[in-house]
Amino acid sequence: MIFFRSDYSAGAHPRIIEALARTNYEHTDGYFMDAHCEHAAALIREKLGDSSVDIHFMVGGTITNLTAISAWLRPYQAAVSVDTGHICVHETGAIEATGHKVIHVPGKDGKIRPEQIERIVEEHEDEHMVQPKLLYLSNTTEIGTIYTKSELTALRDVCRANNIYMYMDGARLGSALTAEGNDIAFTDLTGLLDAFYIGGTKNGFLMGEALVIVNPALKEDFRFMIKQRGGMFAKGRLIGIQFEEMFRDNLYFDLAAETNAYAGKLREGIREKGYSFMVESPSNQIFPLFTPEKVRELEKKYFFYPYLPLDNGLVPIRLVCSWATTQEDVDSFLQVL
Amino acid sequence: MIFFRSDYSAGAHPRIIEALARTNYEHTDGYFMDAHCEHAAALIREKLGDSSVDIHFMVGGTITNLTAISAWLRPYQAAVSVDTGHICVHETGAIEATGHKVIHVPGKDGKIRPEQIERIVEEHEDEHMVQPKLLYLSNTTEIGTIYTKSELTALRDVCRANNIYMYMDGARLGSALTAEGNDIAFTDLTGLLDAFYIGGTKNGFLMGEALVIVNPALKEDFRFMIKQRGGMFAKGRLIGIQFEEMFRDNLYFDLAAETNAYAGKLREGIREKGYSFMVESPSNQIFPLFTPEKVRELEKKYFFYPYLPLDNGLVPIRLVCSWATTQEDVDSFLQVL
Amino acid sequence: MIFFRSDYSAGAHPRIIEALARTNYEHTDGYFMDAHCEHAAALIREKLGDSSVDIHFMVGGTITNLTAISAWLRPYQAAVSVDTGHICVHETGAIEATGHKVIHVPGKDGKIRPEQIERIVEEHEDEHMVQPKLLYLSNTTEIGTIYTKSELTALRDVCRANNIYMYMDGARLGSALTAEGNDIAFTDLTGLLDAFYIGGTKNGFLMGEALVIVNPALKEDFRFMIKQRGGMFAKGRLIGIQFEEMFRDNLYFDLAAETNAYAGKLREGIREKGYSFMVESPSNQIFPLFTPEKVRELEKKYFFYPYLPLDNGLVPIRLVCSWATTQEDVDSFLQVL
Amino acid sequence: MIFFRSDYSAGAHPRIIEALARTNYEHTDGYFMDAHCEHAAALIREKLGDSSVDIHFMVGGTITNLTAISAWLRPYQAAVSVDTGHICVHETGAIEATGHKVIHVPGKDGKIRPEQIERIVEEHEDEHMVQPKLLYLSNTTEIGTIYTKSELTALRDVCRANNIYMYMDGARLGSALTAEGNDIAFTDLTGLLDAFYIGGTKNGFLMGEALVIVNPALKEDFRFMIKQRGGMFAKGRLIGIQFEEMFRDNLYFDLAAETNAYAGKLREGIREKGYSFMVESPSNQIFPLFTPEKVRELEKKYFFYPYLPLDNGLVPIRLVCSWATTQEDVDSFLQVL
Repeated sequence: MIFFRSDYSAGAHPRIIEALARTNYEHTDGYFMDAHCEHAAALIREKLGDSSVDIHFMVGGTITNLTAISAWLRPYQAAVSVDTGHICVHETGAIEATGHKVIHVPGKDGKIRPEQIERIVEEHEDEHMVQPKLLYLSNTTEIGTIYTKSELTALRDVCRANNIYMYMDGARLGSALTAEGNDIAFTDLTGLLDAFYIGGTKNGFLMGEALVIVNPALKEDFRFMIKQRGGMFAKGRLIGIQFEEMFRDNLYFDLAAETNAYAGKLREGIREKGYSFMVESPSNQIFPLFTPEKVRELEKKYFFYPYLPLDNGLVPIRLVCSWATTQEDVDSFLQVL
Repeated sequence: MIFFRSDYSAGAHPRIIEALARTNYEHTDGYFMDAHCEHAAALIREKLGDSSVDIHFMVGGTITNLTAISAWLRPYQAAVSVDTGHICVHETGAIEATGHKVIHVPGKDGKIRPEQIERIVEEHEDEHMVQPKLLYLSNTTEIGTIYTKSELTALRDVCRANNIYMYMDGARLGSALTAEGNDIAFTDLTGLLDAFYIGGTKNGFLMGEALVIVNPALKEDFRFMIKQRGGMFAKGRLIGIQFEEMFRDNLYFDLAAETNAYAGKLREGIREKGYSFMVESPSNQIFPLFTPEKVRELEKKYFFYPYLPLDNGLVPIRLVCSWATTQEDVDSFLQVL
Repeated sequence: MIFFRSDYSAGAHPRIIEALARTNYEHTDGYFMDAHCEHAAALIREKLGDSSVDIHFMVGGTITNLTAISAWLRPYQAAVSVDTGHICVHETGAIEATGHKVIHVPGKDGKIRPEQIERIVEEHEDEHMVQPKLLYLSNTTEIGTIYTKSELTALRDVCRANNIYMYMDGARLGSALTAEGNDIAFTDLTGLLDAFYIGGTKNGFLMGEALVIVNPALKEDFRFMIKQRGGMFAKGRLIGIQFEEMFRDNLYFDLAAETNAYAGKLREGIREKGYSFMVESPSNQIFPLFTPEKVRELEKKYFFYPYLPLDNGLVPIRLVCSWATTQEDVDSFLQVL
Repeated sequence: MIFFRSDYSAGAHPRIIEALARTNYEHTDGYFMDAHCEHAAALIREKLGDSSVDIHFMVGGTITNLTAISAWLRPYQAAVSVDTGHICVHETGAIEATGHKVIHVPGKDGKIRPEQIERIVEEHEDEHMVQPKLLYLSNTTEIGTIYTKSELTALRDVCRANNIYMYMDGARLGSALTAEGNDIAFTDLTGLLDAFYIGGTKNGFLMGEALVIVNPALKEDFRFMIKQRGGMFAKGRLIGIQFEEMFRDNLYFDLAAETNAYAGKLREGIREKGYSFMVESPSNQIFPLFTPEKVRELEKKYFFYPYLPLDNGLVPIRLVCSWATTQEDVDSFLQVL
């Protein structure tokens, strides 16, 4: 069985395993208070070109989102998201479990637009309604699309005008920033966002994400929140070591670019054979449409996620490439098609 | 600097690193739904001699406690603990953050006694007070002591009589079950407890715990809770692989016994030199008493946790051994003393 | 200024004031444990024709909703509502503040349909999503429409088939059950619903609602929840006395019918003058459409709630009648029109 | 049966009933946005001699405490209280249900001392523990004692030095400020406290409390919190009218003083007959000690709350006077003794 199911089906990039083995016998302090975490944070700050940001290492995506959002909102404040947003659909109500409503609006290509935020602000007029206070967005989005710099700038402007924090879920940030058509530099992020996380799990790590807090108002006492929500990893250095390895050169982005390249080959190969797509996505997730028979045939050899059939009878499937995808995997799929 | 600071200052036992490297290129399904997790759970069930229990792999201790307790209690129900209990002191209010009060009572050697539970039940007489519903205890306790089988049996009886769940935090369960004086077999646990977790982080893992749910009333929909609280690890197999490695033979308990042995040598060496202890602990944590001057001297070479001075001026310090402790570490400390 | 702003702008029906004055010097036990509360509950049970239900007196609508829903759902379970539902819009995230997501769907005339529930159940397929567990509906709805018996029966059937509780917010239950076109008897409710509340505040009480719990699974320990959420009123009898007065004869329903009659006169009078309505509502709330100029003119003499203009430029306004509305109020409005 | 059970066993002072009857046919806006609430707030501000405070009318004590504390604390912050504090014991975990730990310490005469707060601050040293942020105290205390001005001043100083808010539960504030030995003026409160509430329910109201927020940092968006927690009373004026009536002259304090006087007669009468007390309390609650036989005898005619027997076999009972207590009640009790 060849896996196009997710970008977390294999272990970690070999340099990660080597780094863990190499440092295994060091003794360090726990809870992200060690030299590896410190060094990893310094490397990230350097690549961001911003020495003022706070960086916290986190153990996974959902716990990052729920810890951050509950840290920053007062009890009656709400997050805003597109209806395909991860916090809306696939976190089992994790944000609501911390007490906060998630206001959602229909996305266009998985993305939210400034006028939707303005409308939400207008509608939430008094204390009988929640107060919209944080914009949640993902890049790449949940359906593999990416934001442009001008889109993010416009969102930032409407957020600032309405006193709304702008937070990016970067579970696939590497893929977004190395996708065809991306015009956002890593160094742009701190100027555009109040906070974001750099996803490791889906880009060749064993696990781990790095939360970057830009807005000083969001920094205070954040470690209390990490501990309270269960994310204060005892052997915190494990995440620090992985970020250190990925950011001491360009490995993080090289891996993402290579993964995007495999997805691109798959996408163009499928397109050449005359198939269409549910959405145009330039990143490591693609969504071709096949007949149910073709899907059943493909499922014999490939492991992937099929969606419910569209009205025209075609079935969208999600194919995901990862650091562990090979040229042979791609060739095989195209050949079988 | 030699570390007696904690049992999570080094990486993982070399067999863990090897197992991760060996399986690195396998592709598996995520979220603990892979063959390694399944196999690890089967090994644990086998060693417990109970095929009926549910086993969930968890990423850390605090998140295990908060997920479990909030899954099992209704909003007005409370946990009961000794005042040194981890959930009382060192989890930044994680249980309260899920909405539940933790009722606490003074411990004797870090342990709760049946009559304290009866008293709590008596005092909480109506709907103007919370309803005590879950007994939280740790073995080893936070001060390194262990429960005997008769103590646990007596607690179980009073819990059952009062419809209270009995849950054990087993962050250091390996150390407890291999400590001098322990009379509890691993196979006894399912008869004594409604649920407990088998700690990995503090016994040679990179990270990870295994929650064992015995009482059928506590099993339903538990994976929803794991996901909601942020513990649904994408590469879940990482924890499965570690438990597989530790439980395919007796490594888990061998490591714990060896660790206890080093702590025992340290303890007896210190005692022979005429020092006394804050508490008698047979496990991998010991608490000798020194003068402030002696503590300052020791701190030059050894990294450990000092407490506030006692009334007699002596300072208790916590020395912790781990799988990574060596004979040289122990000899060195005793020599410097 | 004449008030059509709400059904809670005046005090209480004079019989309520008299009853409070008459009983003022009695000494009773607190917290709804007095003879008046007991008697009031007996009267309600009698009128429902069901002696098995639990009845709890509550101080207001939002606190009833949040106490009930948080009592009945496990942490990962969600409520389902139309998007105009009170819990969705006008409770400042009260349900989410107790940890639960509210899944919402577009309403048709303010009402939810069985196929929408089936679709939600289908979409929420595993532990990565919340579990839909309670249907929240209001009768009358937030836009003054009413459910028919066959609509409620169909909803009940789909709820039962999917193990979903059905809960009715009866803030305006009196108005619903006495509206033109209603075919639901008060005695039908216990066969259709798992729980509901009988609204007092908006039907001539000073304050107070009566929560009726039909499903035995929802009854346990409910008073703990009332206390914890702050609804355990010390002088609980105040609410008991009001329900006693309203249900010792048919006052509750007579008042509602009379209120509906005034709203009906207003509605037909406005219709006769050639105006149309945002929605056809047979209850005590009506929503006529006027030009902005007309609205500004009416606002000089009448206090009501105007909505945002429609695309055709007309402005819907909400006119609400109450027990305190008079024939003069209605005549005056129609005359000024 | 004569009631010494509580200060909320009868209805309301006749002037309250009259005021409600007199204003019954007025139409006003809801949710505390009417002229009576505005006037009542103005009267309270005037009597406090501080025009800068925010005043919010609340429906009961527990909902005031939980709304206020959850509004003012960040998720990892805790309240501090004596172990007899109402929020510790008799609110069914209401504060914890909003996510916050209540740290408690043994009281002396029901009161907390500055050095206890200093100790708590010292012990809560880092992000592995909650952060003490709000001091909760009651005046009168739960056992009827009162704070002196110098005690409150000392507490205020230690709170300010440690950045801790000081909040007073004034369920029986009237009784405290008119008790023998009290040296705190009503006008002193805004200089001593960050916030407090003026209790109505236990001082002759039907229901209702007035929360006074002094510290500007605690004022923002408080009405959102009231609404979210279910305290946004539709006919809010009911509470405003009652405070208006009580504060348009000195009725609030006159009633409290009269109530204290009856309790004082009872206390001195009991003392003269040779009985002793569990605690010396100058307010409307007294706690005499009787033999079990005497308690059983008294229970035939009087309704009061007995505690568990002391070690010496004597049983403390709680006798509470209220606005509805009469000279005959007191005489009768003393006679029967």
